[in-house]
Amino acid sequence: MKTESAFIPSGGITSPEGYLAGATSAGIKYTNRPDLGILLSEAPCMAAAVFCTNKVKAAPVILSAQRLQDGKARAVVINSGCANACTGEQGTKDAVEMAELTARHVGVAMDDVLVASTGVIGTLLPMERIREGIPKVKLTADGGHELARAIMTTDTVPKETAVRAGDFIIGGMAKGSGMIHPYLATMLCFLTTDAGVDADYLGAALKEAMDISFNMVSIDGDESTNDMVLIMANGRAGGKPVVPGSRQAEVFQQALNKACVHLAKAIARDGEGATKFIEVNVSGAASVADARLAARTIVSSSLVKAAVHGSDPNWGRVIAAAGRSGAELEADKLYLEIGGICLVKDGAPVPYDNDKVVKHLNGDEVRIDLKLNVGSAAATAWGCDLSEEYVTINSEYTT
Amino acid sequence: MKTESAFIPSGGITSPEGYLAGATSAGIKYTNRPDLGILLSEAPCMAAAVFCTNKVKAAPVILSAQRLQDGKARAVVINSGCANACTGEQGTKDAVEMAELTARHVGVAMDDVLVASTGVIGTLLPMERIREGIPKVKLTADGGHELARAIMTTDTVPKETAVRAGDFIIGGMAKGSGMIHPYLATMLCFLTTDAGVDADYLGAALKEAMDISFNMVSIDGDESTNDMVLIMANGRAGGKPVVPGSRQAEVFQQALNKACVHLAKAIARDGEGATKFIEVNVSGAASVADARLAARTIVSSSLVKAAVHGSDPNWGRVIAAAGRSGAELEADKLYLEIGGICLVKDGAPVPYDNDKVVKHLNGDEVRIDLKLNVGSAAATAWGCDLSEEYVTINSEYTT
Repeated sequence: MKTESAFIPSGGITSPEGYLAGATSAGIKYTNRPDLGILLSEAPCMAAAVFCTNKVKAAPVILSAQRLQDGKARAVVINSGCANACTGEQGTKDAVEMAELTARHVGVAMDDVLVASTGVIGTLLPMERIREGIPKVKLTADGGHELARAIMTTDTVPKETAVRAGDFIIGGMAKGSGMIHPYLATMLCFLTTDAGVDADYLGAALKEAMDISFNMVSIDGDESTNDMVLIMANGRAGGKPVVPGSRQAEVFQQALNKACVHLAKAIARDGEGATKFIEVNVSGAASVADARLAARTIVSSSLVKAAVHGSDPNWGRVIAAAGRSGAELEADKLYLEIGGICLVKDGAPVPYDNDKVVKHLNGDEVRIDLKLNVGSAAATAWGCDLSEEYVTINSEYTT
Repeated sequence: MKTESAFIPSGGITSPEGYLAGATSAGIKYTNRPDLGILLSEAPCMAAAVFCTNKVKAAPVILSAQRLQDGKARAVVINSGCANACTGEQGTKDAVEMAELTARHVGVAMDDVLVASTGVIGTLLPMERIREGIPKVKLTADGGHELARAIMTTDTVPKETAVRAGDFIIGGMAKGSGMIHPYLATMLCFLTTDAGVDADYLGAALKEAMDISFNMVSIDGDESTNDMVLIMANGRAGGKPVVPGSRQAEVFQQALNKACVHLAKAIARDGEGATKFIEVNVSGAASVADARLAARTIVSSSLVKAAVHGSDPNWGRVIAAAGRSGAELEADKLYLEIGGICLVKDGAPVPYDNDKVVKHLNGDEVRIDLKLNVGSAAATAWGCDLSEEYVTINSEYTT
């Protein structure tokens, strides 16, 4: 058994064995862009998901959570252009009907169909368009790329990945952009694998992967009513089933982490209006929780993001964000590098080559390393700069 | 005794009896704008303050907190243009020297002088300019306006107030703009009164006023290393001393609340790049803590702020922000008005006159009312829209 995992070039959600996908332009967005699609496993699947913790949950989120209680799913129908959130009883009925239409179209039991929606809140789904659209979705073994495009809203590029490890493959796709923030799932992400994995363990592995990937990404601090990260495992690779504690489980976890981190970084890179990608590494923390807290707070800070946007080495904002994060720290132990150049040692500024730091900040990948020097835990968070374009996009979203 | 409080037109920090203030252009900002000033009480004062909770505290914050342990202060020296934060031992020495120079200049004991600084983090104070500047500060009985100008950074207008109630007056001035956020004091604010108030009670009254004023304002979610809200009481009005539980205390608290709310709203109105003032009222909450949490989360949401900026009635963002706030709520009980026009009832959209809502959003004061309908507690928060200008200002702050 190979132990190293590797990305599959141009891979995606249909890279693992036994998955079909497809999409169509149903006109939900009132454009010709694809906006409705289906992901299907040819074989029965174990499935697990994490949903948004927002107390206002969209109808499809509530429905999908119910249907996943048995740890099984065969298909997901996904639309962009309308979130079906804050839509009352009619919204619930519409989500159920979407699932029914899909079950009929792909020939699986209704209880095995999940629903995901993304787009504007508070608008009812245009059900005639959906009724017309679903039967038009052609499912193919390389339809993953089409589906990855159909779930985009303000995303500028589709986000896909596939990782091969041992006998199996993990595929994935995601949509992100605005409203991305730790602990609120915050986006749609669908993962597939042909490994055979128990549903309980699948859920545990997904949570572990999310903690170091999607939960470490922040775009604007807002969170959605519709977020969902789903993983399906159909066992088609034919290897031994993955059980907790095994070497196989370690390989699976590493591959899943790799796929999720790849998608999380793609989401950060494509944040609304983003012109730069930011990576924040916090080390020397008293605990992993502290390291994550500090890294996320820094990468979420509007002032840090605006400074990076303007290539301004305003490192005091990084220190101030760490200070308010709640992570244990001592001001006079802080050590800070931007782009590998030390700016702060023992909590006080040191002379540095300003041109070099500005040159790094002018690039499209900015790296901030903060050592707290109070322990040995570390974490990495990703985000993007705050640009005038972000404001413009979000001033004009519904209008 | 009059029980009603009233604003004093053009009042400020030197409106109460026995206070002097003044400022000078010391060149800390390398411009001709005033950037250094002093507030002095002619008589001994009880004093109380709230400082930022950021774990990285600037030298003047640490020094002032120490000197206030005895509940007394006579003078404050304040500079803008440099925060004296993350400046190590030299920063501490510089803060002490500022206090010494001031004590000598105004003729009070060194322990009775507090220090406050605001500006860029991580730069040492230009001490020669400060040594030259302090003796040049002329203290006068109407110098409050001058001092209110000297503490401005990116503020576009000075923020001052004075309230007369009963026998006494409360005066105040503040600076705000960026980095304003609940529970981090987040700004400089100085309050004076000629009422006689015990230091312990003064602190309690200040905290109560802050909970409904400065702690309910959010500009960008960031928080500073230098924030400080100080109140001084010199008893010069000659009335009975204010003791807890008395009718006098009630009058004092109301007047203090009024002054603080006035300054807090002025800070929100003058947020960096702000073009609109936003007031969010949350009612029907299970507790006051919940109402405050929901109101603050809504007014802090980048997506809500951007929508208001673009006059986009994207009410789903208000609901989503409330949903993630942590406040107890039930999605199907929510009732939402924007500018007095109902958009959501029982958690679902209702037909509304879009032109009327857009017209309200096009104004410079936007009002959002959300009823949770799960209890009877209420709270109000203030903020401003998120504009392209905010990004521009904060991309270019140090450079």
